Amino acid sequence: MTTSRLEAFSDGVLAIVITIMVLELKLPHGDSLKDLQPLIPTIISYLLSFIFVGVYWNNHHHLWQAAEHVNGRILWANLHLLFWISLFPFTTGWLGENFNSTIPVALYGLVLFMASLAWYILTKLVIKHEGIDSPVGIAFKNDYKTVATMVIYALAIAAAFYEPWISMAIYALVAALWVVPDKRIEKMI
Amino acid sequence: MTTSRLEAFSDGVLAIVITIMVLELKLPHGDSLKDLQPLIPTIISYLLSFIFVGVYWNNHHHLWQAAEHVNGRILWANLHLLFWISLFPFTTGWLGENFNSTIPVALYGLVLFMASLAWYILTKLVIKHEGIDSPVGIAFKNDYKTVATMVIYALAIAAAFYEPWISMAIYALVAALWVVPDKRIEKMI
Amino acid sequence: MTTSRLEAFSDGVLAIVITIMVLELKLPHGDSLKDLQPLIPTIISYLLSFIFVGVYWNNHHHLWQAAEHVNGRILWANLHLLFWISLFPFTTGWLGENFNSTIPVALYGLVLFMASLAWYILTKLVIKHEGIDSPVGIAFKNDYKTVATMVIYALAIAAAFYEPWISMAIYALVAALWVVPDKRIEKMI
Amino acid sequence: MTTSRLEAFSDGVLAIVITIMVLELKLPHGDSLKDLQPLIPTIISYLLSFIFVGVYWNNHHHLWQAAEHVNGRILWANLHLLFWISLFPFTTGWLGENFNSTIPVALYGLVLFMASLAWYILTKLVIKHEGIDSPVGIAFKNDYKTVATMVIYALAIAAAFYEPWISMAIYALVAALWVVPDKRIEKMI
Repeated sequence: MTTSRLEAFSDGVLAIVITIMVLELKLPHGDSLKDLQPLIPTIISYLLSFIFVGVYWNNHHHLWQAAEHVNGRILWANLHLLFWISLFPFTTGWLGENFNSTIPVALYGLVLFMASLAWYILTKLVIKHEGIDSPVGIAFKNDYKTVATMVIYALAIAAAFYEPWISMAIYALVAALWVVPDKRIEKMI
Repeated sequence: MTTSRLEAFSDGVLAIVITIMVLELKLPHGDSLKDLQPLIPTIISYLLSFIFVGVYWNNHHHLWQAAEHVNGRILWANLHLLFWISLFPFTTGWLGENFNSTIPVALYGLVLFMASLAWYILTKLVIKHEGIDSPVGIAFKNDYKTVATMVIYALAIAAAFYEPWISMAIYALVAALWVVPDKRIEKMI
Repeated sequence: MTTSRLEAFSDGVLAIVITIMVLELKLPHGDSLKDLQPLIPTIISYLLSFIFVGVYWNNHHHLWQAAEHVNGRILWANLHLLFWISLFPFTTGWLGENFNSTIPVALYGLVLFMASLAWYILTKLVIKHEGIDSPVGIAFKNDYKTVATMVIYALAIAAAFYEPWISMAIYALVAALWVVPDKRIEKMI
Repeated sequence: MTTSRLEAFSDGVLAIVITIMVLELKLPHGDSLKDLQPLIPTIISYLLSFIFVGVYWNNHHHLWQAAEHVNGRILWANLHLLFWISLFPFTTGWLGENFNSTIPVALYGLVLFMASLAWYILTKLVIKHEGIDSPVGIAFKNDYKTVATMVIYALAIAAAFYEPWISMAIYALVAALWVVPDKRIEKMI
């Protein structure tokens, strides 16, 4: 089985997720600048999630450049990843309306954490299928970056119960770190 | 006629269905954990339907790996399948709001049943077009699994008039059975 | 310029239109069979429009199987077609809520008429680009079916001012006529 | 890295943006012609934005016909462009409800301006990657049209604070100018 349809389907889901998040930006009732003001947290949440989906799309792109085949388990591991990403519009919208509340901030981080975990499982299954000496095997063998990201998300979730703004700063930092494209794989190809 | 555009269009519809179902997850008004609680049935319905769409995408993927050509009737049989799947967001949303009510639970099963029937018709038309000795003909000749699934859905619909929770358990069981990828076809390819 | 990206983009738009129309099926407030009853006109409208979008997708598929190149004018003629089709969710939703009212029924027909006209212009531009003796030129030279459809739509729009149900019957008839795939082109390929 | 998946993903986002903008066309409560009247500004805004998205899709199509490779920075420059385009449904909807108000008209222009700027950055990065003597380098070397468009948008934004209708006329003019396909690139290919 080749990867092309898996890529097309994932592209579709990621493109829809990244776009329907904007539907949470409800039109303001007035027409002045101050009517836009309450939307600022929603816009920031949207931007943050847009970057995270962009990161997943980029990494996904890199992974399937390196990998060449899929099996049934990989298809489901990929759907598992898409499931968590499909919850982004919900957690992003709720975060936008409750920017400084513990539970929305923590839930946002939890879904990020689960997506990272799903990504980690997906890469492990792909390595197992392609072989440890394949390009993807070498590139993702020691995926410290994903593991570190999961640890940081766990800390951010915990921090939300103490001070939600700390969690928000951590999310922004993680987003910034991942925008840098994955040099390891680019070097391989 | 080749299958590539049919696959691309179906991927598009399935990707959109799987993603817009999440729009039924309305943002809670408060920001606490107990505000999320009423959403639990909707989340479970969403997860269930996500798996069903994933199963259809997987099976669709397998079918068009094995088959190579389409004709006008196959294009419409495929649209017929997509029609029933396109109703998933509606039945899933209604189920999520009425988790223990006969009609929403039965309607959810009815749409699943109709999608199964549409899938069954589609595979029969593809076999007829490709030939009984083609890879797809051999793989789908005795599609007991789809027939059994339809019988089980019929039982689940009936059960909803007696005790909706039994139907829900049956749906979950069917989803679990189908997550296992179709060995028959994988063996063929 | 090849047709592949034009096909991919059009598939995307058609897949989204066919799927978001279902968002007009608002969840009923109750959980009984009679709560579903007011949705019947909306479901019928949805089914009708689903078939029309399916017809356009099928015809589009056939056209680009026969044609091989595009130019700037063809790209815009295609976008012009997609514009009218993108209005289907609006006219379908309004029709569903006002099944027996002159203006919604007439507007539904007007948008169908405009989409037919856009389709007609698109095929003419493609013929001009490919040549009158090309496969697409021969297949679409005397497109009586599209012209007849436009005349019928015009009659249906007029009929809506007399008796909307007549228009609805005409729309259903046209949909049925077009579900039959285009033999002319299939023969060519 | 080849451009195919970048094109597929961008096609997806553009197709979704162009289609979900129609969701801002809320169904009128009545069923008469005068119930449609308040929707006229929204329909005009929709048409305008539909054309702008169509222009971006066309230009995007041309750019990747000429260019052949991407790197990480180009992927992000492309996502940056898609981010601003993804805000079109919001600014279009707000404009439709406040056709003659300074802030909505100016914001609409600001997002157009930012999308133009993102497009400009994207082409510069592609030229840098492909080389100044590559087809894309020659075609986009002196992209006066994009620069002029940005200047015009800036003027339109300023005009909104004086008389919003002037800005609207300018937006319509720019849309009309861009509908003409990019001859420079077509000549190259």
